[in-house]
Amino acid sequence: MACKFFLHKGMGKRVIKGHPWVYSDEINIYDGEYTNGDIVEVYTDKGQFLGKGYINDASKMAIRIMTRDLDEEINEDFFKRKMKAAWDYRVKVIDTSSCRFVFGEADFLPGLTIDKFENYYVIQLSTLGMDKYKDTIVKILVEDYNAKGVYERSDIGTRELEGLEQTKGFLTEPFDTNVEIIENGVKYIVDLANGQKTGFFLDQKENRAAIHRICKDAEVLDCFTHTGSFALNAGIAGAKSVLGVDVSQHAIDCATTNAKLNNLDDVVKFECHNAFDVLPQWSREGRQFDVVILDPPAFTKSRNAVKGATRGYKEINLRGLKMVKPGGYFITCSCSHYMKEDLLRKTIADAAVDAKRCLRQVEFRTQSCDHPILWNSDESYYLKFFVFQVY
Amino acid sequence: MACKFFLHKGMGKRVIKGHPWVYSDEINIYDGEYTNGDIVEVYTDKGQFLGKGYINDASKMAIRIMTRDLDEEINEDFFKRKMKAAWDYRVKVIDTSSCRFVFGEADFLPGLTIDKFENYYVIQLSTLGMDKYKDTIVKILVEDYNAKGVYERSDIGTRELEGLEQTKGFLTEPFDTNVEIIENGVKYIVDLANGQKTGFFLDQKENRAAIHRICKDAEVLDCFTHTGSFALNAGIAGAKSVLGVDVSQHAIDCATTNAKLNNLDDVVKFECHNAFDVLPQWSREGRQFDVVILDPPAFTKSRNAVKGATRGYKEINLRGLKMVKPGGYFITCSCSHYMKEDLLRKTIADAAVDAKRCLRQVEFRTQSCDHPILWNSDESYYLKFFVFQVY
Repeated sequence: MACKFFLHKGMGKRVIKGHPWVYSDEINIYDGEYTNGDIVEVYTDKGQFLGKGYINDASKMAIRIMTRDLDEEINEDFFKRKMKAAWDYRVKVIDTSSCRFVFGEADFLPGLTIDKFENYYVIQLSTLGMDKYKDTIVKILVEDYNAKGVYERSDIGTRELEGLEQTKGFLTEPFDTNVEIIENGVKYIVDLANGQKTGFFLDQKENRAAIHRICKDAEVLDCFTHTGSFALNAGIAGAKSVLGVDVSQHAIDCATTNAKLNNLDDVVKFECHNAFDVLPQWSREGRQFDVVILDPPAFTKSRNAVKGATRGYKEINLRGLKMVKPGGYFITCSCSHYMKEDLLRKTIADAAVDAKRCLRQVEFRTQSCDHPILWNSDESYYLKFFVFQVY
Repeated sequence: MACKFFLHKGMGKRVIKGHPWVYSDEINIYDGEYTNGDIVEVYTDKGQFLGKGYINDASKMAIRIMTRDLDEEINEDFFKRKMKAAWDYRVKVIDTSSCRFVFGEADFLPGLTIDKFENYYVIQLSTLGMDKYKDTIVKILVEDYNAKGVYERSDIGTRELEGLEQTKGFLTEPFDTNVEIIENGVKYIVDLANGQKTGFFLDQKENRAAIHRICKDAEVLDCFTHTGSFALNAGIAGAKSVLGVDVSQHAIDCATTNAKLNNLDDVVKFECHNAFDVLPQWSREGRQFDVVILDPPAFTKSRNAVKGATRGYKEINLRGLKMVKPGGYFITCSCSHYMKEDLLRKTIADAAVDAKRCLRQVEFRTQSCDHPILWNSDESYYLKFFVFQVY
């Protein structure tokens, strides 16, 4: 018998609307016994069933709902059904050669991320409750999704909030973790074991494609290029010249390798610089580009650091805008959930005033559609992406 | 000598930021003589030059700025330069076989709309100041843009605010105003003389393309189909069946003609219904579709009618959501500037709660990029477009 948890009076409204998280301070009493990681049942104070999910009383997010159906068992079949729904969706909306296969809460599998890189899969388990199903998930990937290999990248700090250790390694027989993928016609070597996050930022796939038309015949500057993805998309779209900049020499080395892999190394060059230092310097020298791209890392990963982050976004957007030729294009984004869309818009507008430039929005985009945004789970929305023409 | 207008103390901040409108109550005094429609100069109370534009003291928007350069003459060369910049931008970002060529304020030509349908052009002049340049604009279209014919669709109520009469008709030798265009692979007969607005809603071009993948093999319902554009895009994308609904029999007749033109009349059917009536009825009968599309007309064209419009959007979204099979797709939009993005989001979210459905956002889009959004001229942003998967 699953342990039953009853919420305080008036609690659970968010859960009723579809959010999967039950906070520890929403829970009043429980009836039964449980061990952390168990599937438990959640009820309102009046006994209305809300859902079943896994518990971890060590976490502020005590229970994460897996199903709204009292009779639905959380077992291998459950995972098969949820993963099939996730897969069918991707097949419908995006090129699935390499894509995000499971996006946690937004795929109704809280705590689980699965990225597909050709026939290799990277999984990330952020919670104790999901960690228990690791073997089940790997089995399904191998049996139903033709996985040649599965690698775990649970080397994330948030696991410690769950009382879990960070971990990474093979979940199948070892394989070469440098996997070649093709996205928007660009080849990359993705390092599943040591690349950032799960090896590659798949969430900008459609945004990278969205720059192709404006980069043709253009002189392009790509700041925070990481392993060169926007720069290489500019190159393959027919840019006259592309300069990619990143503060990490390791990233620049990877980017340079990727340029060679695509025979684009004559057009797409990379240099190791801190964008915050080099943009003001180049501004003073009067350098300008037809297209300037800013894809900075999340300046804030918490609500508390938003103020400092806003200063960072303002500064880099101001610097970036000054580098755009009149009539040229400016591409800027934020991948921080805490940097809300409205605040980001205001910050970019402020930067434009200070830079004395006028913005004409060509397109606004979010994260790629293989990272869907669950409206009842606001946390699933994080990437904001703008294309402007600048006067 | 151009007449000089001086604003009240503290006025003009919006204009300094780049907005082209000077309101009559911002103006303090003027120095010189003018006739409505003249180009005048605008200064702050301290004498700082803000811009030159045309005046109409009969309008609340007394002056619309055309240039920020005191030395720039507003003449044929000026229009050639502005139109060339507008054209170069479209060539850069979109298929220009048929597109919006000039989008008023957002192309720095306040009061002027030009739509291109193959080699025919429709122009709309909403202000007295722009009306004066009608002949210049037509001349440039013929000489520089190979116009086979130009038609005026200034049959808009807002002209009366400018003291102008509504008017429509040929600005070149007469021609057959039923023009065949191709957009996203779909053919349409566009009626330049009698179609809504300038004949066709070009602003959804990219959004129509965005539904192709999810409509393949699907049963699709397209509400407010007008001349059938979303329905036909669903059809050409390989939908199993498409039903388009509109309250206007004339629209349904046009849509049916367009279906035949594309040899899609076996798959894409149209029926004349009021969506507000028929959706509840079909709901009661248990009818559901894989994809439901709502592209309603602007329920509000003024700030004052937003409350009533919100009720309309809530109602139609609620009805539409109930018609979607679980796991199916829901496409909804608003083309009203006054229905702000945040309010629309809240309204859709409320509708989902009432319909007991869970929304997963696949994509958010705005008007097509040939209708760019000038950030300093908020009015240029009007179309919000959502694609959801619905559980």
